Amino acid sequence: MTTDPIEPTGPSPKAGGVVISVDAMGGDNGPAAVIAGLSKFLDDTGDARVILHGPRDVLAPLVAKRAGRERIEIRDARDVVAMTDKPSQVMRHGKSTSMWSAIEAVRSREAQVCVSCGNTGALMAVSMVRLRKVEGVNRPAIACLWPSRNPSGFNVMLDAGADIRADQDDLLTYALMGASYARNGLGLKRPRIGLLNVGVEEHKGRAELKVAHELIAAAAPGADFEYVGFVEGGDLPSARVDVIVTDGFTGNVALKTGEGTASLISELLRAAFGHSPLSRVAAMLSMTSLNRLKMRIDPRRVNGGVFLGLNGTVVKSHGSADALGVAAAVHLAYRLAISGFSDKLAARVASSVALSSDVADTTDGDGPTDQMRTGGTSA
Amino acid sequence: MTTDPIEPTGPSPKAGGVVISVDAMGGDNGPAAVIAGLSKFLDDTGDARVILHGPRDVLAPLVAKRAGRERIEIRDARDVVAMTDKPSQVMRHGKSTSMWSAIEAVRSREAQVCVSCGNTGALMAVSMVRLRKVEGVNRPAIACLWPSRNPSGFNVMLDAGADIRADQDDLLTYALMGASYARNGLGLKRPRIGLLNVGVEEHKGRAELKVAHELIAAAAPGADFEYVGFVEGGDLPSARVDVIVTDGFTGNVALKTGEGTASLISELLRAAFGHSPLSRVAAMLSMTSLNRLKMRIDPRRVNGGVFLGLNGTVVKSHGSADALGVAAAVHLAYRLAISGFSDKLAARVASSVALSSDVADTTDGDGPTDQMRTGGTSA
Repeated sequence: MTTDPIEPTGPSPKAGGVVISVDAMGGDNGPAAVIAGLSKFLDDTGDARVILHGPRDVLAPLVAKRAGRERIEIRDARDVVAMTDKPSQVMRHGKSTSMWSAIEAVRSREAQVCVSCGNTGALMAVSMVRLRKVEGVNRPAIACLWPSRNPSGFNVMLDAGADIRADQDDLLTYALMGASYARNGLGLKRPRIGLLNVGVEEHKGRAELKVAHELIAAAAPGADFEYVGFVEGGDLPSARVDVIVTDGFTGNVALKTGEGTASLISELLRAAFGHSPLSRVAAMLSMTSLNRLKMRIDPRRVNGGVFLGLNGTVVKSHGSADALGVAAAVHLAYRLAISGFSDKLAARVASSVALSSDVADTTDGDGPTDQMRTGGTSA
Repeated sequence: MTTDPIEPTGPSPKAGGVVISVDAMGGDNGPAAVIAGLSKFLDDTGDARVILHGPRDVLAPLVAKRAGRERIEIRDARDVVAMTDKPSQVMRHGKSTSMWSAIEAVRSREAQVCVSCGNTGALMAVSMVRLRKVEGVNRPAIACLWPSRNPSGFNVMLDAGADIRADQDDLLTYALMGASYARNGLGLKRPRIGLLNVGVEEHKGRAELKVAHELIAAAAPGADFEYVGFVEGGDLPSARVDVIVTDGFTGNVALKTGEGTASLISELLRAAFGHSPLSRVAAMLSMTSLNRLKMRIDPRRVNGGVFLGLNGTVVKSHGSADALGVAAAVHLAYRLAISGFSDKLAARVASSVALSSDVADTTDGDGPTDQMRTGGTSA
């Protein structure tokens, strides 16, 4: 792997300011969409720099035409992770891929954050192996943004599918990480956290949810978030909560159900307006109103799942993201980088693990150790 | 409890045809909405009769004014199950409630099917105790209808929240029961069944899902359904599947997430069209198109969760159902009653349990017994 800025006269990305490591490959729309989105982002953001990973001969001509090219450094990586590649294969044989290279730049601290449109499973696997988990985190999580009735227009939900299970301690960690993300990504000073369940009554739900309910309530006062208790699926877009905590299986199903429902309604709306000549006229007159709606629920505006719980921030952009979607994901990465999110999250989890270990020590002489409480596999 | 038809000249509901047992109480809109819906249903359906349960002094004046009153028999029940009552309380002290009385009429075979708008948890608990589980069913399930791209306009999803967990054998039973419901409720000859997961690849998901995947695939040829394999949240409204099988926790979250997303979009649509004087004019011109959309996703049209796996059919109408919603639920109950659904489902599950027990016997001399395979708690 060699470094070769295509504008050798510009200052090196290492000189200062935010540096974002971007995987140019692996998205459904190819590197052209990624580079168009990057260019849009760089146009909006004066001081950021980008390290762009992929085959140089493919990337150089695409970058050469674009605004902001003097702040893009291409790093040659010959191979590409396909959407169908198994994570385990990529972990063993993926060293020469653009995805690996993009994560490596965060590991070496050349960049503060990594963005990729590629294969989610492979990106999480390589991120886990190369960046390693933060002390006190057993299962990292993917946090996603959800269109909501809150002033910011978004709620945070995690885990959106990094793991297919989560025990009570994982759910507590998700609450801490989600609160930290909402503070740094959405600018909420004291985020309101809810735990996803099948009802709001305390006696409802699985055993691990009842324990997590107690753990999160106990952690809230020391961790600058408000715990609103159990919430239901209908609360995902609600204004009574900012962050919704759940296991990755449920979160993934909920996310895809929400997307599927929105896409069915869009289709039916189009069909309703295409029904007759009169309704087509009505549609033309309603264009502005319909576009206003589309803006609010446009998945490209909420693009960017963030991997939480690793030593370094990784933003997963949707595989089908176009230039606007990529720009949204890179903007989110930039916001997290300037807030120093990664270090703040690690400090927050560490202090809370210490705290809950103190509680265990004082209430029970044979209390579990930190290692045991967090599943014993943290880095 | 006494029987007292308000039209003593009319023939008794026991004389023949379909009899539907309806709990008049416990819905958010009171008995007036239930009776208005019933009247609408009776107007559409010449031969059906109704036994209506609740305080006679409240119900009689409401029924007296309505079309179809000669086919409604009021059965006096003084008490009402409130939405806040705990299922365990109702099971112990609920004998004089309209809900209990409504289920009792199915147990005594006076009616073929029961409809209630009341407290779901209590309705399931009383149904389990009084009707008992079908031989071979460990966990009964609630099946709900989901707006979809299929010609019927609906898909079936189960379990929507009868239980918070389901093991591999429960998921197989849900597939059998869901297929039977789709045949009798939606008129599909050979329903396509999918198992909800976080990806369509075979290696994805929790361990019990992988086993259920094998079990359902093996049961398909003998049970007149097609198994399409794993499906994702986005497939709930899709045309590649008719019945989606999942545990009650995931199903309940998915259902409420879908409803919440649809309601957010409706709100945003209203806001978009109310934005300016011009957009309000556009809205007026688009009224017909928007109403056409509303019709397709109107939750009142899909009203009616059906309890599956009990000796008798119980339809749970939404607590907030208005007359149109109640009529939809009663129509669904009627359709299931005339198809002889309850007996068909029991036969289907029984033959499949016998079949899988045969397989266990032939492949493994120490194979589990029927009782063990289904969790050992079937009636």
